[in-house]
Formats: sequence, structure tokens, C-alpha cells
Amino acid sequence: MNFADRLNHAIREKQSCTVVGLDPDVARLPAAVRDAATGSGRERLAAAVLAFGKRILDIVAPLVPAVKPQVAYYERLGWAGVRAFEETVAYAHAKGLLVIGDVKRGDIGSTARAYAFAHLGGDPDAPADPAALPDAVTVNPLFGTDGVAPFIEQAVPAGRGVFVLVRTSNPSSVEIQGEGSDPSALSRRLAARVAAWGADAVGESGYSAVGAVVGATFPEDARVLRAAMPHAIFLVPGFGAQGAGVADVAPNFRPDGLGAVVNSSRGIIFACTRPPWDRQFGARRWEEAVEAATRKMNDDLRPLLTPTPA
Amino acid sequence: MNFADRLNHAIREKQSCTVVGLDPDVARLPAAVRDAATGSGRERLAAAVLAFGKRILDIVAPLVPAVKPQVAYYERLGWAGVRAFEETVAYAHAKGLLVIGDVKRGDIGSTARAYAFAHLGGDPDAPADPAALPDAVTVNPLFGTDGVAPFIEQAVPAGRGVFVLVRTSNPSSVEIQGEGSDPSALSRRLAARVAAWGADAVGESGYSAVGAVVGATFPEDARVLRAAMPHAIFLVPGFGAQGAGVADVAPNFRPDGLGAVVNSSRGIIFACTRPPWDRQFGARRWEEAVEAATRKMNDDLRPLLTPTPA
Repeated sequence: MNFADRLNHAIREKQSCTVVGLDPDVARLPAAVRDAATGSGRERLAAAVLAFGKRILDIVAPLVPAVKPQVAYYERLGWAGVRAFEETVAYAHAKGLLVIGDVKRGDIGSTARAYAFAHLGGDPDAPADPAALPDAVTVNPLFGTDGVAPFIEQAVPAGRGVFVLVRTSNPSSVEIQGEGSDPSALSRRLAARVAAWGADAVGESGYSAVGAVVGATFPEDARVLRAAMPHAIFLVPGFGAQGAGVADVAPNFRPDGLGAVVNSSRGIIFACTRPPWDRQFGARRWEEAVEAATRKMNDDLRPLLTPTPA
Repeated sequence: MNFADRLNHAIREKQSCTVVGLDPDVARLPAAVRDAATGSGRERLAAAVLAFGKRILDIVAPLVPAVKPQVAYYERLGWAGVRAFEETVAYAHAKGLLVIGDVKRGDIGSTARAYAFAHLGGDPDAPADPAALPDAVTVNPLFGTDGVAPFIEQAVPAGRGVFVLVRTSNPSSVEIQGEGSDPSALSRRLAARVAAWGADAVGESGYSAVGAVVGATFPEDARVLRAAMPHAIFLVPGFGAQGAGVADVAPNFRPDGLGAVVNSSRGIIFACTRPPWDRQFGARRWEEAVEAATRKMNDDLRPLLTPTPA
């Protein structure tokens, strides 16, 4: 089944376009989780990060279609952290969630193929457990077509997907993703590429398994990019902790109420440290804060899921 | 000690600017190495990849200043592969080699910081064994300054370095790294950024700990980029298996005979499968082919290390 169809099905089923980003900064884990982990050194920290992720997955699984673990926070703990990443992905699948692996890999063709095997499977020489692999990954397009194609080739026939970076949410993205006086010229060129790369991967829902990362922090770009990539699902970071609100993410959706999933990481997983949840719950009731923040985000975004009359 | 000074010292000591790229494609390992590995599944393959890397490091350690393990071929084997990567780095250090971790990471600032902790160390909350960390890493600059700065901040004070992607060696790099009719306009903009990012990290040898990846496959660009980044050491891929020769890499050097290191991966580690080494040695004498290919590359490049009169 086409990845876009799988994701859209999950969005309709859960009535949610929220993606919970797992950015388990080891310095910010709840004390109880950290103290309960056994072992030593980075293996102990990896056990704590795994336990933290599992608790969050338990809480959000009934509420959202997908989660997005950020591999950097696992790599930070070395091989033990990568093992925790694989176990987190498998646990999310067991809970019925789709998983977007935020790996942002990109390289020349032969190396991109190795990365695609690593994160999307299909390796004839070193088969991985499919349950421990993400359903989709983020890809950095700096290398152009021959660096992106290996990811698409592994993903699409297997019912998996890719999200290509088009417009990132960070302040200095404009330095590279713009050209001259035009702050999003490269992003528009990338959008045309993504539309072409994904043209043969459009599913029954009218969306492609080749999507795009479009930051919520530049809503004026989103309108242009939405028109340039009519079949792409947008993975939209920047909501919440990075400052964007509902009005900022609205241009990423199509009139059918689909076309975008919106990510929040720190705003959900560390909700107990942020207003208004810090006062309501505090650090010890961090799990209730995770649930409340997720429900609030779902409620805020739900109007965007309603089709608008033509 | 500044990373550029460390690298230039090793170049002068070994009289070599060759970097041996470790791309241990598990499908191409020598039969003897593969058969000797114990365990099962991907752990067995990771043991074979580790053993293969160690044999190569034994052979090339007296001959070259640095090696460049490509993490994709280790990630492909899951957490066990990442553990083999760490052990390969530590073994290279024990052999007196500098290690350039070819990880090509890049992300928004907070995530880039986690990647920098992972691959360059300095993490106050999850300290790593410094011997298992590369001396430098490759970085993808698509996010701009706030995505690159965390790598530089971790690297430079610790005597480590970064190599920022400026012009990649693959055929379709021009799609993104060019602009309009100009095939290297973005690369030139990136070069100006790299010069600025590295200005405060220039060592006693006159080179910066912030270097650049400049593919050998576009020698006409190398001249322009060399002038734009006078203090950057260029990490030059594309020699050998990707088609570039000595004349192609020459423009990456400065008149002092420094300023570039040239990588060959498949052309060295799988030399026994390529002319002329396939006929001379064959698959069973693969180690002799590795040594011969490394010595040949050193001999070919050595004239470039001689300072040219002004």
C-alpha cells in the first residue's frame, strides 16, 4: 500500500494531523525515568531514553497518526543509543503508529543506497527487521537527483516514503535556501524537483509517497510551495516551541483537508516545563502534560482537516 | 592543537596527502574475511566489516596521514554496525592515523548540537570515549549558519575539525549546487560562508580547522573555490573510481604544497577487483593490492606536495 495512502488513512482514522517528535534530550529526561534506568555510562542513558520514548508512545498512540524520532538524540549515545532508536521504532509500530525517521541523510548515489538500506530496508546482503525500520525518512537533497533516487527506489515499492527538505524552519535557512534577494529561490527549485521525483509515486488518495519538509515559520513560502507540489504531503516542523501557530500552518493544507502533517517535539514531550502545563502539572506529572499538550494540538489543528468548499 | 596543524603535520611526516576512504560494502568483502566472522545476522556482518577495516588500517597506517570511514556502510548494519564504526575509529587512532568521519550531518541548531556531541564529543551529559570519536567530520550546510555553528563550536576548541560540503563530486550535484545557467553559483556562495565560518580557527600553518569538501570531478570550479577559501583545507573526493586524475586535483592545492587531501575509497579498499591490480594480485591477494594502490596514489600525488616558486 502506498505510503501516502497509509498516512492519510491514519490521519482520517485518528482525526489528527499531529506528529509527535521524539527529541529525547538526555539532559532533560524526567528524574523518575532517569533514575529507574540500570547499567552504566551511555548504555544506562540509552535505557533511560528508550523508557522515556516508550512512555510517550503509550500516551500518544491513541491520539496521533505518526511519530517522528530524531535520530541525533539517539546517536548522541553511541551504538547503545542507535539500538534504543531501533527498539523505539519497533515499539511505535507495535502500538499501531506510523514512524517518520528524522535522519536527514544525503550523499552520492552509492552511499545514499547504503543509507537507504540502513533506514528503509530492502538490503539483499544484510536484511534488517522491518518492524525496526521507519515507514518514511527525511532526506537532504543537496546532492540532487542521483543522491535522492536511491531513497525513493527503496521506499516506494515497499510502501514506505521520503520527505525531502525543501524549506527548513530555522532562522538561517534563508542563507542557503534563498538566492540573491529572493529568500526562497532554492526552495522553489527544490519544490519543482520534488514534484518530478514523486510523480510516479502518487497513491489512490491523490498524494505521493515522496513528500516535502516545509517549515511552518515561513507561511508566505508555504502558499507558493503548496502550489508547486500539489501531490506532496508536507511534513511541517516549527509548530509550538519554534513559534508557529495554526494560522501559520494552514497554507500547507489542500482544500480536501489533507496534504500536511504538523510536528511538535519539545512542545509535547517536555510540555511539563512550558506554559500553561508547567503550572498545571509540574515535573512529576509530566505524562499528563504530554497527553494534555497532544490533545490541545489536535483540537487546535482539527479545523484544518475539514474540507473547504471549492 | 589546531586540527589543520595536526593534519598538515601528518601530511609532511608521511609525505602523503592521500586519505583512504573506508566504504566497507558488506556485499564486496573478501571471502576469507567474511567467512572468518562469527555470530549471526547483522552482528556477524558487523564483525566482518570491523575485521576488514582493521586489516586495511594495518596496511595503510604507515603510508597515509588520515582515513575517512563512511558511516553509511556501518549504519547499514544497524546498531552493531555503529559499534563497529566506533571500534574502527579507535583502532585507527591506535595506529596513529587521523580520522575524518564521513557523516554529512546537518540539521537545525538544537539538533545539530546533538549530532556534534555524537560525532565530535564534548557532551557534558553523556561523555563518549574520545578515542572512538573522529578528529573531524563532514557537515551538510543546507541549514545555514545556525546549523553549522554547533559543529564548529564543539570541534575547534577540542583540536578537531569540520569539512563543509561545498561542491560534491556526483554528476547531479549541479542541479542544486548551481543556479540558473551557472553550474556552481551555490557552491561559490557556500565557499564565502566557509571562509567566514573558519576565519577564527586558523592555526599556525595558515590553515583553518574549518575545511571544505570540493569534488575532484569539476576542476574548473576548484580554481575559483581555492581563491574564495584561501585558508581552508580541501577534502577532495572523486579521485580514482569516480574518474578524476592528478591534473584534476592539482587546482585544489596552494603554492605551498598544502591545502588539500585527496580521498580514494573503492579504488584502494577494493583495488584487487580493478585494473591493473586485479590481474597482478587477484581476489586472494587483496591486501597486497590495497598496499600497491595506496603507494601508487602517493607516488602520483607526491609532486603536488612540493612548494612551487612564486
